[in-house]
Amino acid sequence: MQTDTLQSESQSRQAHTLIASDRVEGTPVRRSNGEKIGTIQRLMIDKLSGSVAYAVLSFGGFLGMGQKHAPIPWARLNYDPTLGAYHLDLSNEELSGAPSIAADQEFDWGDRSREVEIHKYYRVPPYWGAY
Amino acid sequence: MQTDTLQSESQSRQAHTLIASDRVEGTPVRRSNGEKIGTIQRLMIDKLSGSVAYAVLSFGGFLGMGQKHAPIPWARLNYDPTLGAYHLDLSNEELSGAPSIAADQEFDWGDRSREVEIHKYYRVPPYWGAY
Repeated sequence: MQTDTLQSESQSRQAHTLIASDRVEGTPVRRSNGEKIGTIQRLMIDKLSGSVAYAVLSFGGFLGMGQKHAPIPWARLNYDPTLGAYHLDLSNEELSGAPSIAADQEFDWGDRSREVEIHKYYRVPPYWGAY
Repeated sequence: MQTDTLQSESQSRQAHTLIASDRVEGTPVRRSNGEKIGTIQRLMIDKLSGSVAYAVLSFGGFLGMGQKHAPIPWARLNYDPTLGAYHLDLSNEELSGAPSIAADQEFDWGDRSREVEIHKYYRVPPYWGAY
């Protein structure tokens, strides 16, 4: 009986966890203190497994110049309702050291060694299972 | 040695399977004969598991009136480069029988029994594991 209750609670919790891709796009990313780091530009989806691999963080720059894109493993992002943003505590120094490219360039998603680097940087397990 | 080769081939194949959410949004959905059924409006993502649960198909209607949204399980959609579209062979009759709502209404994503109905309709296993 108790198991049933737990299961149905867990199911109803899971059932409310869907979010629309076009709501994630454009959502700000902030530090604990509320400082805005940047904005989620898009999600990168692994077609084979159907899992979200990265959220691409758009950050830096001024009047559109010098803006950069950093792929953040989805597992590393947490939405914080209080912040009204995804919560990521990266200092400006850490951010400039994070794997990223200029916003007007195309990231080479086919380069798995680069993907390993990203996951090691953020210390999360890779979406494809194991290195 | 052979295992190494196989593994590296499989890895490089996997590595090229990422697609941007904002490229999926707006992609047409067509039948084998090229007829357009509708357009992908957005993706619905399960925050907990990080997996894409549904692609929301926008279809029907005329001049924006009477348009409907049907959530298609991600596992059911296949991109066909020849069609330049996702390939889904649903007749107009099947489409009108598919779980859907008016485009100006909010689908109740929290209703798991409704989600079970969707997955049974498209005969694919549910993204959350089991009924």
